[in-house]
Amino acid sequence: MQTVEKIGQQAKQASQIVSQLSLADRNEILKAMATALTANQSTIIAANQEDLANAQDLTGPMKNRLTLDAQTIAGIAESLAAVADLADPLAGPYENWDHPTGFKIIKKTVPLGVVAMVYEARPNVTVDAAALTFKSGNAVILRGGKEAIHSNIALAMVLRQVLVDHNLDPDIIQLIEDTSHESVNELLHMRQYIDVLIPRGSGKFIDFVVTNATVPVIETGAGNTHIFVDESADQDQALEVIHNAKTQKPAVCNSAEKLLIHQAIAAEFLPKIADKLIAAGVELRGDEAVCALDSRIKLATAADWDTEYNDLIMAIKVISDTAEAISWVNTHTTHHSETILSQNPANVASFMNLVDAAVVYQNVSSRFTDGFEFGFGAEIGISTQKLHARGPMGLPALTTIKYEVFGDGQIRQ
Amino acid sequence: MQTVEKIGQQAKQASQIVSQLSLADRNEILKAMATALTANQSTIIAANQEDLANAQDLTGPMKNRLTLDAQTIAGIAESLAAVADLADPLAGPYENWDHPTGFKIIKKTVPLGVVAMVYEARPNVTVDAAALTFKSGNAVILRGGKEAIHSNIALAMVLRQVLVDHNLDPDIIQLIEDTSHESVNELLHMRQYIDVLIPRGSGKFIDFVVTNATVPVIETGAGNTHIFVDESADQDQALEVIHNAKTQKPAVCNSAEKLLIHQAIAAEFLPKIADKLIAAGVELRGDEAVCALDSRIKLATAADWDTEYNDLIMAIKVISDTAEAISWVNTHTTHHSETILSQNPANVASFMNLVDAAVVYQNVSSRFTDGFEFGFGAEIGISTQKLHARGPMGLPALTTIKYEVFGDGQIRQ
Repeated sequence: MQTVEKIGQQAKQASQIVSQLSLADRNEILKAMATALTANQSTIIAANQEDLANAQDLTGPMKNRLTLDAQTIAGIAESLAAVADLADPLAGPYENWDHPTGFKIIKKTVPLGVVAMVYEARPNVTVDAAALTFKSGNAVILRGGKEAIHSNIALAMVLRQVLVDHNLDPDIIQLIEDTSHESVNELLHMRQYIDVLIPRGSGKFIDFVVTNATVPVIETGAGNTHIFVDESADQDQALEVIHNAKTQKPAVCNSAEKLLIHQAIAAEFLPKIADKLIAAGVELRGDEAVCALDSRIKLATAADWDTEYNDLIMAIKVISDTAEAISWVNTHTTHHSETILSQNPANVASFMNLVDAAVVYQNVSSRFTDGFEFGFGAEIGISTQKLHARGPMGLPALTTIKYEVFGDGQIRQ
Repeated sequence: MQTVEKIGQQAKQASQIVSQLSLADRNEILKAMATALTANQSTIIAANQEDLANAQDLTGPMKNRLTLDAQTIAGIAESLAAVADLADPLAGPYENWDHPTGFKIIKKTVPLGVVAMVYEARPNVTVDAAALTFKSGNAVILRGGKEAIHSNIALAMVLRQVLVDHNLDPDIIQLIEDTSHESVNELLHMRQYIDVLIPRGSGKFIDFVVTNATVPVIETGAGNTHIFVDESADQDQALEVIHNAKTQKPAVCNSAEKLLIHQAIAAEFLPKIADKLIAAGVELRGDEAVCALDSRIKLATAADWDTEYNDLIMAIKVISDTAEAISWVNTHTTHHSETILSQNPANVASFMNLVDAAVVYQNVSSRFTDGFEFGFGAEIGISTQKLHARGPMGLPALTTIKYEVFGDGQIRQ
């Protein structure tokens, strides 16, 4: 097994090669990778069976995410081939201008270099991340969860073989086979080789990465998202939007976790939404005002207000006005997606302007916070930070700029 | 003295206010600040005298940077007023598009929120940073060096009074008066209040910040910059460019520190450039090949190749070809500014494409890496990282984006 240091070194070197490939070459190779995945599906499925045999302790949904069969592999290959059809994030035209002394400055879009991805037991991320980083001219270091290690090794081997077949350095795509915590820790500190690390996983894991890494990190995905129903809301519409945002896919980061109801409508609206959510199997927790209005709802603890459940649970609070809603949201937000349900333009404007989140919604389900839904064609993650990229990240998030200056002997006076 | 925590809290609150000011209001206040600086110059100069009296140990250039008199204050006020004339970094038009289900997505440009600046004994940075963060709608926390503390307090008091006079929260601009290391340490970890921290200072200090901070950081300024003279270079032009890049202002980050000479021209070119640099008072150090060619040059140590001198010192090395030059530069670069002096298009293309730096020059002095020279009107620093901002940073580097979504009840299927 190669050391993480060695993998980093190789990635840095390989990043120069992949950064110089033409769009036509990158696309041809992506399509060849899609074909190779399907052609090698029996090897991949056999490796996945090993992972599944070791995965007795996993819950049903986690086992589902881990499972690869002919159909899921076909889906992964299809997504991979679709990346070839996306616009080139490195393409010009680039801004350029002349300095008064006559030299030309070109502001070029270039790959970041070496991207490291740390993620959990979802083997499809191995292929997605490899495809998106490759398309954008980067080398990638993949460090997936140990539950998927055999699947990941098999997938990476197929992708690397395609690189070899095209006379390219296979270290453009590398998988860390060491699934110990130490290998992650080493990655977090390898500033000389890694240009950006993108963690995907639980809020707790991402916090660990952000507070420990010395390499540049893009925070993704923690979503303690709120819906505020103000006094002017269309209540029938609100019932549908809240139901959708909470129940349509509760395990993901853009589903709703908290509901704030304006005091003027609480007595009327709470029983209706509680009926609907309880019927959908949602466990409700509430502040004292909520519990006083509906005896089916149990009292929330202080920890509830900062917890991302990723489950059929929702905490509800009565709020006195839009200003309090904004202040509450800004105190508890993970800066992902926040929603106001309202027909009052002044309330909407305040909420939009003052809530500090990547995406702020009026009268729309927050389940739409997603690269595909936003029209970016692909998504490497959802940034909850403000620097570099915010919200759903498409291919441009994997690029940076470089100033190229061409002159004929200009000196500064 | 207020705690750093309290200052952070206040800044977060004030950031909402400044983020909502119109361009006209921001510009009017900037101009009022410029007027107030001049009107209060005697108070400022008196405070500065205290700092100077305590600054017996400072070197001449550092004392110069610290000194405020009527003329320097007029210059600072003029720069401040000029910020009012810069384009609004928050202005639209914003990209916007409709989702197939009918809701609208607007990609808005918004301030970062709370910007923290940590810097050394240059009181002008106090005003520059306050002006640029204010113009871009941010609250700022300033933490200047202890040598300038009295000057900084006086300057901040003038700026804050202008905010009060305009019925605004003065905590939009705050100065940390505690000049202990602990106050910096606290800043580095105040994730709940600080959106970005920009350190300005020595490479060692910036490294400390980057490796210890848990708040988002933009790395600035360390510049171990190289010039590679290839076999095709116009040697007369090269002499002028190297001389300018090394000697015109040796203490700054965009001045040249290392010279790489192609072996085919080393015997011819080295004596000429050594004559010119030695005449300008530059101490030369070299690898063995260089020392063998010119006995005036002493042998460089391994540490030389990674040292930013910020002084009249230059280390010179003989290189076998462009590929070796690129590899050498990429190993020792601080990713700031790198230069090739060449008339050979193939060498220039390789160097431009493969050298990993914010700015890459052909036949131009690297002294031009500067926000004003690049036409950005102002500069909050020079980013040597790849995320968010790279190279000279103008006002847009102090902004982020936010997606505002407006619909009428859309839910995800």
